[in-house]
This record gives sequence, structure tokens and C-alpha cells, in this order.
Amino acid sequence: MAHDVSPLAPAGFPDLPPIGGVALATGATGIRYKNRPDLLLAIFEPGTAVAGCFTRSKCPSAPVDWCAAALDGGRARAVVVNAGNANAFTGKAGISTVTAIARAAAKLLKCKSTEIFQASTGVIGEPLNPAAINGALAGLLGTAMSERWPEAARAIMTTDTFAKASTVTARFGGKTVTINGIAKGSGMIAPDMATMLAFIFTDAAVPPRLLQKLLSQSVAKSFNCTTVDGDTSTSDTVLMFATGMTGAAPTGLKAAGDARLKGFAGALDRLCLDLAHQVVKDGEGAEKFIEIAITGAESDKAAHRIALSVANSPLVKTAIAGEDANWGRIVMAIGKSGEKALRDKLRIRIGGIQVARNGMRDASYQEASIMPHMKGRDIVIEADVGVGSGRATVWTCDLTHRYIDINGSYRS
Amino acid sequence: MAHDVSPLAPAGFPDLPPIGGVALATGATGIRYKNRPDLLLAIFEPGTAVAGCFTRSKCPSAPVDWCAAALDGGRARAVVVNAGNANAFTGKAGISTVTAIARAAAKLLKCKSTEIFQASTGVIGEPLNPAAINGALAGLLGTAMSERWPEAARAIMTTDTFAKASTVTARFGGKTVTINGIAKGSGMIAPDMATMLAFIFTDAAVPPRLLQKLLSQSVAKSFNCTTVDGDTSTSDTVLMFATGMTGAAPTGLKAAGDARLKGFAGALDRLCLDLAHQVVKDGEGAEKFIEIAITGAESDKAAHRIALSVANSPLVKTAIAGEDANWGRIVMAIGKSGEKALRDKLRIRIGGIQVARNGMRDASYQEASIMPHMKGRDIVIEADVGVGSGRATVWTCDLTHRYIDINGSYRS
Repeated sequence: MAHDVSPLAPAGFPDLPPIGGVALATGATGIRYKNRPDLLLAIFEPGTAVAGCFTRSKCPSAPVDWCAAALDGGRARAVVVNAGNANAFTGKAGISTVTAIARAAAKLLKCKSTEIFQASTGVIGEPLNPAAINGALAGLLGTAMSERWPEAARAIMTTDTFAKASTVTARFGGKTVTINGIAKGSGMIAPDMATMLAFIFTDAAVPPRLLQKLLSQSVAKSFNCTTVDGDTSTSDTVLMFATGMTGAAPTGLKAAGDARLKGFAGALDRLCLDLAHQVVKDGEGAEKFIEIAITGAESDKAAHRIALSVANSPLVKTAIAGEDANWGRIVMAIGKSGEKALRDKLRIRIGGIQVARNGMRDASYQEASIMPHMKGRDIVIEADVGVGSGRATVWTCDLTHRYIDINGSYRS
Repeated sequence: MAHDVSPLAPAGFPDLPPIGGVALATGATGIRYKNRPDLLLAIFEPGTAVAGCFTRSKCPSAPVDWCAAALDGGRARAVVVNAGNANAFTGKAGISTVTAIARAAAKLLKCKSTEIFQASTGVIGEPLNPAAINGALAGLLGTAMSERWPEAARAIMTTDTFAKASTVTARFGGKTVTINGIAKGSGMIAPDMATMLAFIFTDAAVPPRLLQKLLSQSVAKSFNCTTVDGDTSTSDTVLMFATGMTGAAPTGLKAAGDARLKGFAGALDRLCLDLAHQVVKDGEGAEKFIEIAITGAESDKAAHRIALSVANSPLVKTAIAGEDANWGRIVMAIGKSGEKALRDKLRIRIGGIQVARNGMRDASYQEASIMPHMKGRDIVIEADVGVGSGRATVWTCDLTHRYIDINGSYRS
């Protein structure tokens, strides 16, 4: 699993402060990987609020089913994450496994099993025996502490080439609160050795329902606006835990739009976007980070679909890998999206330079002027489709030989 | 443009008989390619019926717009096809060009300009000057003859590595009629140097409306069930011409379902499927031809969408390129399609061998048993999603390094 670090990786791992009410521990089960931690246990103070967003796959993994049901309770005491086996497409055995892990952890923490959350990433279709995980839990409980963020981020990696984390602060309830997040993912997803997971922790006191609304909003603008290959995992999971250790929430907080939540919501947006961008920057084989901004669509939803059509086009992605400002392929991808676009009003900019307008090449456009941008690491594509005021931005990476090397090799 | 011939190419170019009422000529305009024919003129007897199917792109090329409008007349005297410039995203200049070509050809043939059909394939966004094409038309008219099928199939090629043609016969109206077809395409489409075009010719007398119905039916089951990269061209075009030279149609022929059309419709189905398969077999970088058959879906349409989700998954395609029977990725692609699938009833076969059933790996499945199939040229994937009785089959190819080589290189 040794890969060179992505050329798009951040300079280093950020400095994450402790979060009151969160303790972390990692261990090695040997289930798939040898000689590396592959198990994360995060423990929370009683009463911690939880929220989650999951894959839209119709074939979700057993842990996804488990978490979606457990969210009803709104409270979490721990999350258990293993890397190497996704416990997906494992039938009744998969359900037995998540149930057994939840019971074992709940017994140790003296809580309800529905307060134990889980995520698994790795090979699918392989039964996951809970014994190795359950056997490690007691030991992890004894060593858990509040400052193991780098170890936690590394324990959940699969084909990732760097550990992903982010931290922000916000003013909330008259105090400064912190939000930390870790993520893994290296392909918007390969069920065989990739999946997007993110875990977000805060010491703010946000009730479960509001936490869910804020998380769903942030995920919609970040993780759900990224794609590496258009392939959606069976196991994608974002879980957020709010311990409330900085003190009680302001009284009468009911709506996600409450002005007193604005700072917190904005900080959460920034954190999610940072983590989502890190996942794309570790996209399998990625050499370039691509932003695609669509305006002038019939609706924001239409703009999002058009942007994804461009982002997922193998012809656009291979052209960018080849540093070719092949805007004809952008026209193609807009046209195939199925959403309204006025061909004869279409305007396209690459790296801020207008290449096409009114449905044809801009008379003043010179390909040479765009080459310095195409040779850079960050590519920006803007297109106005001339219909309405809908807008959306998505992020992706290019499609290179390394993607095929990584995904075309035998699993064994 | 020299490429090695696809390893999936047929043994040779088929022997196409003349079609009464059809004369062919090819020429070299020098517009983009040097030293090769890039222009096809096919001339039809007066009264020839025409039908057509086009790209669903919202940014279609000028020739597509022209043909879609001209179809209203139902009659064709000629089709003009050029390779190297798609006349797409060329604004008003593009409309002027197709109008000028139609007028020039109509003047020579003494017919209405709406009886002149056109298709263009190649670079998009480059204005296409009609002068070189119009200047060549009179010469082509003088040399047109009925037996130039190989030249015709070669003149319309772009990145194709072999010329594509097919011929079938059928009993119709008490006589044996012939249907010939030629096609180009090498990527379900790159607007920069690829596009799927097919031209079908018959001496049968089928009225335009019935011809359109039969063609639409056949295209739905063939060309629209193939994908190389999920990228839809601005210019995809299938045109069919029926000269009626074998004699008048049977009287009272009104419905496409008329029993007297059955043989003809079946022959047309076979021809379209053969041509569509040849396009996939010349998919950019293709090393393997893949059939994906979905059963048990909510509807045939749902099955079609699921099959395309599998066929367009880069993870499935790279796994097959790597000769890896990675059925977990098939589960992923079924799950992400958005269509109903009962995870716990899912059954998957590869090369006729059951790998998964009831939502988990088949207990008796041994990966070694499937390796001879994975190492072959023809890969067959079958999945039953356990919901209803909808079924569909699509065809695609694998995703190899050659695809990135072809599409990631500079245009110049």
C-alpha cells in the first residue's frame, strides 16, 4: 500500500488542539494490513450529540445501515472505525458483526449499543470477523487520550497517500468553541480499498437535531460537491460529535438559521470544505486540482448536475492531465448533462481567460495565453450556460496513468 | 492519426453488394488531414426515403440541427460527410456553412436543399469553411459509383483504427432486399476527434415514417446501448436511406409492427447491433469487449440505467483492463445507479460463473475458476437485482493506459 505522497498534499499535518470530552486511541488488528494501526476508537462524554450523512448507494454497507438507524437516538458514546475490510455486501454475517461490535463496546462503556457508531473501509464482500476488533477494544479504552489526532487520521487510511485533518474555531454561546475533523478517501470511491470517511468533533453544545441540519448543509456544499471518478462507495460516511464540554447551548436555540449559530455554521462549512478538498487532492493518481464553477443555469441543482457532468467526464479529465486547454470537451460535457444550456449564449473561461462566448470561440482568444495556467497545479474552469441564475461549484482532479495503475492491478 | 489496429477488430472488411439507387464517391479536401480522403458524397435516386437519430446533447453541432430539420421532408437526394472538423460550437458561421453546402449540392443535383443531409466529425469550435467541400462536390458527382463501400467507410474515419461496415438481407414485399451500413466512432465520443456516425442504405421501399420508426427502434437496442467513456458527442448521427429500387412497398403498410415488416426490422436490428459493436471494439484503447446484462430491475429503463452505470464506471473498466474479477466494484456501480436494487437478493455472474448471490459472495465461488474468462477478449457480466422483471444489455470496453495516451495528448 506504499504510494508516493500526492503532489497536491498540504505541506504538513495541521496542529489539532484537544476537544473536551473526546478521547482517542488506535490499534492494529492485523485483519488485512500488517504492522500498521487500522483501528480507531473515539470515546465521548455521556450526552454527546451526534449527526451523520451517508452514501446514497442502494447497496450500503452494514455499518452504514447501523449508523443510520442509531442516529435516531441522537447520542453517541463512541465511534469504532476499521480500515482494510468494508463489511459491505456481507449479508447477515455483516449485520451480526456490527451488532457484536456495538454490544462489546457498549458493555465496556456501560451505555446503550445504539450509542456506538461504526464505519468500515476496505475490501467489500469479505466477511468481517468481529473478534479481532472486539478483542482490542478494552486495551484501547485504557490508552485513550485527547491528543492522538495524527494517529487517528492515519489509522483510517487505505490507499490515501497522506493523513487528512482540519481544525477551526468559532464563537458560540459566548465562548470560543473548536471543531476538529479527520477524513480519509482517495477516489470518490472504490469499494475495493477506498471510501470517503470523515469524523468531526466539537466541544460545542449543539442539540442533535440542529447538529444534523448544520452537518447536512455543510456536507451538501463540500463533500457532495467533490468527485474523483464518479464512483460512489457503499460505505461513505460523515459523522459529527458534539460533546458540549464548553457549556450549555444558548437557551431557545431551535432553528439552524438562528443568528447565534452563524459563526459555528460558517466554521463548520470551512472545515468540511477543507477536508473535502484534501480528499480530492489525494484522488487516485491526481496531479491537478480542478475547480468547476457553473453559472447561469436553470437552478442551483441544474448547475450542480452540469458541473458534475464536466467533473466526471473522462475526456475533460484526461485533457487536463495532458495540460491541454481543450474547451470543446467542456462544451461536450455541458451538452450531455441533460440540463438546459443555451448553446449560442455559452461562455467559458479557463484560468480567468475567456475562451468562448456566444456559442463560439472568443475571437481574441490565443491558446498560448492559457498555457501557464494549464501547466499549474490548480485549474479553474468557469462556464455560464445562459439560461437563468442557478450556480454551483464542484471540485475534482485529473485522470492520469496512475489511476489506471492503482485500479487496474490485481487485488492480491 | 496512425494507430495500431484494435485487437478487437474483425478479421477483415465485409463484402458489401451494391444497393440499387445509391452511388458513392470520396475525395480529399485537405481541411485537416493531409493525403487521405476525408469527404464522402452518397447520392440517391429521387424519392429516396430518409430517417435519422441524433445526439441528445443540448449543444448539438450545426449539421445535426440541419438534418433534424430536414427530416421533416422525408426525402433525401444526397448525404455529404466530412471528417476532421465537426462544425460544432461554431455559432452563426456554422449555420452559414451547412446552408452553403446544402445549396451547392442541391444545385448540382437539381433538388431542394432540404434533400441534402450532412454530418461532420472532428475538432469542435473551429469554423468550417464550406469552400473546399463545395469545390469538390462537382468532381465527386462525376465519379460516383455503386461499389465504393471500403473507400466510403474509410473517408469518414477520425481516430478509428479500422473501417466499419455491415450488410444483411431480408425478405420484404415478396423480394430479397439488402441493407448496407457504414459507421465510424472510437470513443462513445470525444468531440475533439471522435463522434459516432453511421449511414445505412437499403434498396427496400419503406415510407419515411415507417423507416423512422424502424430505425428508432433499432438504434434504441444497439447504438444507444453502447458506451466507451460515457461522453456524448455534439455530433452523433445515424441516417438511413431507402431508395425503393427493389419495387414498391406492399400496399396498406402502416404500422412498424406489421408482420410484413418483421424480416426487414430484424435484419436492421442485426445490422445496427453489428455496427454498434464494431464501434465499441474500436473504443479508444480497448483491449476487451464487455457485455453487461441486467435482469430483475423495476423496468427495462431502470435495467438500462443500471447497466450503463456499470459500463461507465471507471473502477469496473480499469479492473477488467487488469483482468481482475473485482465484483465488489460491480456491486458499487449497481448501488450508485439510483435505481432500485435489493442488496440482499443481488446475484452476479461473470463469464457464466456465479460469484455472488443473496447479497453476499457465493460460498462455492473460487476466484481461480474465473481467471481464464478474465484473460479472454470477451467479458460477460450478468447481474440480477431482485426487484422485478426489467432487463437490458449494454456493451462497452475496458479503460486502459492507451485511452489516456490518446486523450491526454496535446491536440497540436
